[in-house]
Amino acid sequence: MADIVPLHKEEPRGLLLSEVSGAVLRLTLNNPPANVLSIGLLEALSTELDAVAQSEDIRVVILAASGTLFSAGHDLKELTAHRSDEDDGRAFFEKTLRLCADLMLKIGQLPQPVIAEIDGLATAAGLQLVASCDLAICTDSSTFCTPGVNIGLFCSTPMVAVSRAAHRKQAMEMLLTGETIDASTAKDFGLINRIVPKQYLQQVVNKYAAVIASKSPQALRIGKQAFNAQADMSIADAYDFATGIMVENMLKSDAKEGIDAVLGKRTPEWEGN
Amino acid sequence: MADIVPLHKEEPRGLLLSEVSGAVLRLTLNNPPANVLSIGLLEALSTELDAVAQSEDIRVVILAASGTLFSAGHDLKELTAHRSDEDDGRAFFEKTLRLCADLMLKIGQLPQPVIAEIDGLATAAGLQLVASCDLAICTDSSTFCTPGVNIGLFCSTPMVAVSRAAHRKQAMEMLLTGETIDASTAKDFGLINRIVPKQYLQQVVNKYAAVIASKSPQALRIGKQAFNAQADMSIADAYDFATGIMVENMLKSDAKEGIDAVLGKRTPEWEGN
Amino acid sequence: MADIVPLHKEEPRGLLLSEVSGAVLRLTLNNPPANVLSIGLLEALSTELDAVAQSEDIRVVILAASGTLFSAGHDLKELTAHRSDEDDGRAFFEKTLRLCADLMLKIGQLPQPVIAEIDGLATAAGLQLVASCDLAICTDSSTFCTPGVNIGLFCSTPMVAVSRAAHRKQAMEMLLTGETIDASTAKDFGLINRIVPKQYLQQVVNKYAAVIASKSPQALRIGKQAFNAQADMSIADAYDFATGIMVENMLKSDAKEGIDAVLGKRTPEWEGN
Repeated sequence: MADIVPLHKEEPRGLLLSEVSGAVLRLTLNNPPANVLSIGLLEALSTELDAVAQSEDIRVVILAASGTLFSAGHDLKELTAHRSDEDDGRAFFEKTLRLCADLMLKIGQLPQPVIAEIDGLATAAGLQLVASCDLAICTDSSTFCTPGVNIGLFCSTPMVAVSRAAHRKQAMEMLLTGETIDASTAKDFGLINRIVPKQYLQQVVNKYAAVIASKSPQALRIGKQAFNAQADMSIADAYDFATGIMVENMLKSDAKEGIDAVLGKRTPEWEGN
Repeated sequence: MADIVPLHKEEPRGLLLSEVSGAVLRLTLNNPPANVLSIGLLEALSTELDAVAQSEDIRVVILAASGTLFSAGHDLKELTAHRSDEDDGRAFFEKTLRLCADLMLKIGQLPQPVIAEIDGLATAAGLQLVASCDLAICTDSSTFCTPGVNIGLFCSTPMVAVSRAAHRKQAMEMLLTGETIDASTAKDFGLINRIVPKQYLQQVVNKYAAVIASKSPQALRIGKQAFNAQADMSIADAYDFATGIMVENMLKSDAKEGIDAVLGKRTPEWEGN
Repeated sequence: MADIVPLHKEEPRGLLLSEVSGAVLRLTLNNPPANVLSIGLLEALSTELDAVAQSEDIRVVILAASGTLFSAGHDLKELTAHRSDEDDGRAFFEKTLRLCADLMLKIGQLPQPVIAEIDGLATAAGLQLVASCDLAICTDSSTFCTPGVNIGLFCSTPMVAVSRAAHRKQAMEMLLTGETIDASTAKDFGLINRIVPKQYLQQVVNKYAAVIASKSPQALRIGKQAFNAQADMSIADAYDFATGIMVENMLKSDAKEGIDAVLGKRTPEWEGN
């Protein structure tokens, strides 16, 4: 992934660490102590995902965090500093929130699946990031909340992601009370796919990534994007769309190879993207 | 809440009891023995919510019921009496069902969060009312059903609320079989937030209300309404909408106070609506 | 159901077995060994449902399968055989996938409720069939997956049904990993209504069918179709629609009879469709 590594040559311990292992890219939020989503970190994530989207080699992205929590959401100090701007910060708030929303949509539109690896607290836009990833795996001591009501700033953008992952009443309870839920409750709510003991977190996430990376890259790219594209359609429109997608998929080399392999009881060999 | 209390001065034990305690308004369905949603009760609820929407003082609404069940839904005797109308009741049925649907939408559009407090049976439009509230807390002996198929009248309007709170197959099972589910199943289905022993019901609901009432009134008003407004949008539209909402929220006094307070490690003091 | 039986007179052990018992039609996938959804089986199902939709007598449909699994999805051999067509199979793939999508939509639009009875594996379009039925009841040893990624063909059309029955992250996990889930997990995901021991499967499904068949046929027809029609609407549109539906329902004979019966504490006698 030659087009990404140089980005970090000049800032080897930057806000976002990037490590490629085979077909898996591990991105690590690295903005201690709370991995807040400052403009710098949002831009680094956005730039990285733009590069990943063009990569032929990366098949799965892991989004992890350094330190003892996943992310505390927006950078309140940075936001507050702009209250002294001529417009009381409006332009900067708009820039930050638009960048953040676009990043969340970008994760959904990325051809590659993104797995969130969570150990510790994910709160506000930090939880939004978790909810926006395709899969989320966390330690049993991880916790989650949307505490905006505690600081006079309702978690309106996190709400978009959380209310689409969980049932409405459960999302509403988190948003109205601002209370913290444990990993098990988050899994019940649909925010988390799997809970693992802390010492196995990375191993399990890597295994998920390896399993997914072993699948047909063509099929993954087609399907991951199609999932999010059809989610907002009526069921009839979704079937029109998905039928077209699947016909094109059938005509690609990996589908021919995969079906031949299963009929011939052998292991398929994928061609690539 | 001076504009509401007089309403009940003339009818102190009316169909709908109203009691203000601090920033919390407790409304109690009081139409024994089954708290059926007669035209009178629907209109009283609707009028009350219109007044609440204008109130600066009320921050949370509790919707409870007197007697041994929450609500058995529409008033079948009242509906049946209108079968002898010239139009066989069509106009009255339309009036009742439109009033009921508008009430449910009004709960979603109300600036204040509404908590349903349930002890006993909530059925048909009674369950619709539960499903339409932002949060629902019930006793462990509460039960729920959509039994319209048993009387030849499919619960089509309750279906709108129930199918948006629960998974489709689970909503469909309730609607097709008309069978009664217990509190635990209702919680699994997403219809209920919390189950409590009977003797603690009111205490727990009041605590939820107090927790929510302690949050920034500005943030609650903004967020509660935004939640329901964005629920029907595509994710891209929802992000456009929520980003705009959050920028305006950032520029309000409570967000400034709340963020200053958290950065200064002190308790915020909310300004009001 | 005179218009259906003849269909099977000429092919008594055809791809789709059809058996009427009272008001319940049992359809059995009979395409051993894997009940793959070949063009022939898809067409037989489609033709049968078209006939059922016109039937006044059938009130509930059970969709079961012969053999040791429910259905392995599309007929890969049949699809592969058409790769040697002049267009590399495009027209045949389109025909198959369109027929399959239309069948799934047809199940939703059918006036009668459809219960899937599953014992064993339901995979890819086989799981899509399960997800598309109104209710699904399975044995405790049944398993489910969307394994398209294993053969280079993402389960894009099954995704439409699965992602509307389950939470997004859970649907995505099935689609990206292709891994098989057990009955209990499928129930947690919202794909299954009830799990029963193998020896009681048919008995429980028949009981569900009998319970539903005992309800007002008018109410069932109105409600079953309305459910799916309103599912894609905004909540305000859904209430407009459902209010209109319910007014018409109130004016039908079964609603009058049913409400009179409940008020008179007697058992209702349904008139029919």
